[in-house]
Amino acid sequence: MANQIYIGVDLGGTNIKVGICDENGQLLHTYEGPTKVEDGAEAVLGRIADYVRKIVDDSDFTWDQVAGIGAGLAGFLDIPEGIVKFSPNLGWNNVQAKKILEEKLGKTVKIDNDANVAALGEAWSGAGAGIKNVVCYTLGTGVGGGIIIDSHIYQGSGGMAGELGHMSIVPDIEAINCGCGQVGCLETVSSATGIVRMANDAVERSEHTSLALLEKIAAKDVFDAAKQGDDVALRIVHRAAHYIGKSMASIAVVLNPQRFIIGGGVSKAGEILFTPIRETFLKFTPEQAREGVDIVPATLGNDAGVVGAAGLNLNH
Amino acid sequence: MANQIYIGVDLGGTNIKVGICDENGQLLHTYEGPTKVEDGAEAVLGRIADYVRKIVDDSDFTWDQVAGIGAGLAGFLDIPEGIVKFSPNLGWNNVQAKKILEEKLGKTVKIDNDANVAALGEAWSGAGAGIKNVVCYTLGTGVGGGIIIDSHIYQGSGGMAGELGHMSIVPDIEAINCGCGQVGCLETVSSATGIVRMANDAVERSEHTSLALLEKIAAKDVFDAAKQGDDVALRIVHRAAHYIGKSMASIAVVLNPQRFIIGGGVSKAGEILFTPIRETFLKFTPEQAREGVDIVPATLGNDAGVVGAAGLNLNH
Repeated sequence: MANQIYIGVDLGGTNIKVGICDENGQLLHTYEGPTKVEDGAEAVLGRIADYVRKIVDDSDFTWDQVAGIGAGLAGFLDIPEGIVKFSPNLGWNNVQAKKILEEKLGKTVKIDNDANVAALGEAWSGAGAGIKNVVCYTLGTGVGGGIIIDSHIYQGSGGMAGELGHMSIVPDIEAINCGCGQVGCLETVSSATGIVRMANDAVERSEHTSLALLEKIAAKDVFDAAKQGDDVALRIVHRAAHYIGKSMASIAVVLNPQRFIIGGGVSKAGEILFTPIRETFLKFTPEQAREGVDIVPATLGNDAGVVGAAGLNLNH
Repeated sequence: MANQIYIGVDLGGTNIKVGICDENGQLLHTYEGPTKVEDGAEAVLGRIADYVRKIVDDSDFTWDQVAGIGAGLAGFLDIPEGIVKFSPNLGWNNVQAKKILEEKLGKTVKIDNDANVAALGEAWSGAGAGIKNVVCYTLGTGVGGGIIIDSHIYQGSGGMAGELGHMSIVPDIEAINCGCGQVGCLETVSSATGIVRMANDAVERSEHTSLALLEKIAAKDVFDAAKQGDDVALRIVHRAAHYIGKSMASIAVVLNPQRFIIGGGVSKAGEILFTPIRETFLKFTPEQAREGVDIVPATLGNDAGVVGAAGLNLNH
């Protein structure tokens, strides 16, 4: 039999991105089209099936070469059953995504949540290629994560493994409420939202910062100001980095992964973020648990989701 | 072939305990004798081999029924190679324990560290029987731990997984140095040593506590005083419990285990320790990550090590 290909679907609220990967996780083709959430689940799943067929038809591969199809999306999922229990951005409730797609496509379909899938993508052919035990952070509006053990996504008993943004890491004395209902979650300080909140608080307190001149502060503005030497911005960036580093120190003695990968929009800030993360990690991790462990930026960017979704059907 | 049996060895600095388990992890026979560390590694390994042969000879089982032998000990190990790199309490350096025992016994031998092995024992036939994903804490002089994923010990990339005592969990502002070289480790507050230190500090500060009347304070004294309503002792117990609960809250969103098991001498304190641990866990863990997750005492006591060591040769 000829080479097998793996199809990945990144199902977002605005666009559906479909990709073909080879057996090594190399992304060969992508196709992107609108989700049109307003049409409802059945129509959106039909659109996914159309895009999948189209990308294969337009390639040099045959349908028989498709080893499986995977889809990543945001929401609460029943992963083994392939059911989307609730997805706020798609507006779905109890949608049998796996079953419906399998009927439409006649191939095995697997679904998983977007942060897990991005982690698998990075582990397969991105910043974690060749490494079996990886922990990925996705720093965006929130803080997501994924745990890759032995090259597979680790779901945990209730599918909540890798929810790194909800590690209770901020000391009680300075903790604020998190959207999840708890207090002191990593996400409250180390997400774009958290960084912007800290910047707005500083401006409101009339602290001396160039950020006060902006009409609306974005996380990127805080990093830019920090790079210019703005003390307040630097303090905010260091605080965001500090708690990421501390959370990694804990994970290092719980799971002892070989590599931490950081992706998502916030990670594009670069060394101004990574240097204090690494410093904090070194400070709080016992030597044996940090030996040979590195902290690196994700490399696949927005493709991590498609690649990881394709990888859901791999059996190494 | 008749039923298989599994031999476990708990190699301590004072005694060697050997046990026979059946396929369900039930401990059928045990034999205990002195380690005599001063005789050196070769003699101690010879003694283990003698005890193993003796316990089988004295039983109704035959040597052919022995499926494998496992040993748990404290130290830095190369687990796949079965080498004791360094064991302070045995005084061993680079001892090829697995190889030597296999030569002496003609059976497969596996070694692992004592906290991992105790965790496996509890997961196999103790408080975690029937559950696949378990995190165990051992609260003694230090705080040890073990991660059981899919009924097997998870070692991590460098063998440092499950070193729960070194989670950096105490906020910087109140953190003290840990023996591991880091600051704010769980072990500094939640081990017997940590509890005694906090009690001594309180007495030294002339706080009003019944503990001041004791010549030498043990962890049990602190729990006893707390049970009598001593406010200072209660505060110390709550602090020790608080950080265990917080560490579990983090683990719940990293690994999402189904059950936390707490063993070791300190765990015998009972509800006065478990209640505040559970309260803290509930406070800091998102609902989805604590649904169906329980926190229970270990049930095998001192046998956990022998049972878990026997379980090292299981392939579920």
